[in-house]
Amino acid sequence: MMKHIALDSRQLEAFAAVISIGSVTGAARTLGRSQSVVTRQIQDLEATLGFSLFDRNGPRIAPSERAMRFHAEVERYLTGLAMMGERIEAIRAGAPPAIDIAATPALASSLVPKALARLGEAALPRQIHLHSGSAEEVVRQIVGRTADLGVASLPLDHPGMETCWIGEAPCAAVLREDDPLAARPVVALKDLAGRRIIAMANPYRLQSRISAALAANGVEPGATINTNTSQAGVALVREGLGIAITEPVTAFADLPKGVTARPLDVAIDYLFGVVVPAGEPRSEVTRLLSEALRSVAEEQLPAIGFRAGRSEGPAG
Amino acid sequence: MMKHIALDSRQLEAFAAVISIGSVTGAARTLGRSQSVVTRQIQDLEATLGFSLFDRNGPRIAPSERAMRFHAEVERYLTGLAMMGERIEAIRAGAPPAIDIAATPALASSLVPKALARLGEAALPRQIHLHSGSAEEVVRQIVGRTADLGVASLPLDHPGMETCWIGEAPCAAVLREDDPLAARPVVALKDLAGRRIIAMANPYRLQSRISAALAANGVEPGATINTNTSQAGVALVREGLGIAITEPVTAFADLPKGVTARPLDVAIDYLFGVVVPAGEPRSEVTRLLSEALRSVAEEQLPAIGFRAGRSEGPAG
Repeated sequence: MMKHIALDSRQLEAFAAVISIGSVTGAARTLGRSQSVVTRQIQDLEATLGFSLFDRNGPRIAPSERAMRFHAEVERYLTGLAMMGERIEAIRAGAPPAIDIAATPALASSLVPKALARLGEAALPRQIHLHSGSAEEVVRQIVGRTADLGVASLPLDHPGMETCWIGEAPCAAVLREDDPLAARPVVALKDLAGRRIIAMANPYRLQSRISAALAANGVEPGATINTNTSQAGVALVREGLGIAITEPVTAFADLPKGVTARPLDVAIDYLFGVVVPAGEPRSEVTRLLSEALRSVAEEQLPAIGFRAGRSEGPAG
Repeated sequence: MMKHIALDSRQLEAFAAVISIGSVTGAARTLGRSQSVVTRQIQDLEATLGFSLFDRNGPRIAPSERAMRFHAEVERYLTGLAMMGERIEAIRAGAPPAIDIAATPALASSLVPKALARLGEAALPRQIHLHSGSAEEVVRQIVGRTADLGVASLPLDHPGMETCWIGEAPCAAVLREDDPLAARPVVALKDLAGRRIIAMANPYRLQSRISAALAANGVEPGATINTNTSQAGVALVREGLGIAITEPVTAFADLPKGVTARPLDVAIDYLFGVVVPAGEPRSEVTRLLSEALRSVAEEQLPAIGFRAGRSEGPAG
């Protein structure tokens, strides 16, 4: 067991500000504290932690390796603290509660804004947080109770989470309108032979299913670009760097000018859904938003199917 | 000091696959190993670590809190391993080396694809990785040598990094074309009073500078949405949810249809730049890409200024 360490939130604020701004002077200015106060708060924090956070070299300070790792924890904690402050204010004002949403980048930039817009002004909280991060980050935020609602690709199975619904739709090819393959209604996987392919980087999710589909069809790509967000993938396509195989949300909902999407002749399934913390009462806005997300997905994605979440029945 | 733990990369692969796919069955299929082999590899890993990774509840397994934290480390390690494999292949084939680029989401979806397209086929490596993550993640990847080149907003100061160049340009307002304020050539900060404002979430970066500028000009927003990526911010604007104050890269380089950008009457500076690991020889492709990034930024962003990086002279 780790021993219990009592941390001081003003020290943590000072630390986060120095990491983010890069200097004690800048952090002190931002926080409205004196430089000597910030310096002392950092030193006190180092004493509490038992390890040093900054390497000092004349007037410059640089975060240590441990400081960078510690920073991720501190950010999560401070976000939770800021949320609580806003919630207290909403309770005091009798206003609809703030909502904190965590979503993977593609979903945070497409389905979530469309679903929020559908709630209408009356139901929309005055304070909304929308955090875009990896599926693993979404899970961490839901399980850690720093988000009220998560929207992510699978895996969505964790005892601390309840799944509201799971959607399943095939991946698509994203290509430039001036690409010869754009003339066809469906792109055959074998037509990608020799082309530069832009694929998603997580080796155990889409990437492995895409690689397996390419190999099963005897397709040898000419070169590859791996990236972890569909938005970067689409931007690479737009610049003429290759053909992307992406999840359908980005492909069919939000492409920039000059870029188009086609179904693939081989099904590579993308599974995504809405999750909430387990065992907590769901607020009205959470329930409405989950429904709106499902309606938007249904309207925008061809060939989508739905499964009920574990909390509502067998996962099938 | 922590005691040295000898980890087995096949066990780590098994663990990462189970986390990502959500079941031992699925992980075994993806890895081409039998289920009993994967189960044993996870058990051996748990024995080495001295803590359990999964909570077992009948046929279901769920990652523990510790497993989720451990997973972030394992992902970084496996990415490094995959990169090394590709580099060995490129050396063997006499091909241009693979390049691994880490960038914040806005830069990964705009400047980086444009700069890569400018390199031309001859200089473009056959294997390119483009990782989109927070500025702190970019720093971690450069310092940890899992990326060759980083493109990020400030802070960019760390002894393990060298800054190639720093660009500085004012933030802008992003609004719908049908917004009355879009009729004006410049948006005054005071015109945002009572409006829903969409701002960046990192409290010690843009958000604090935006809040300070609003307060200094006596502007009280009607409601707020905080998000950590400009792409999500722009998508929220497109759906009619408010006016975003974003960095200029997204505002002036890559807006979707129906959305436009205007300069603000109050300067809120955005600083960003290119960084490389310190003390390593820079490859030709890294040097070319850093130059291309600077040219693209210069062409696309109004009112941009440049500073030399620390490695090339005083930061000014």
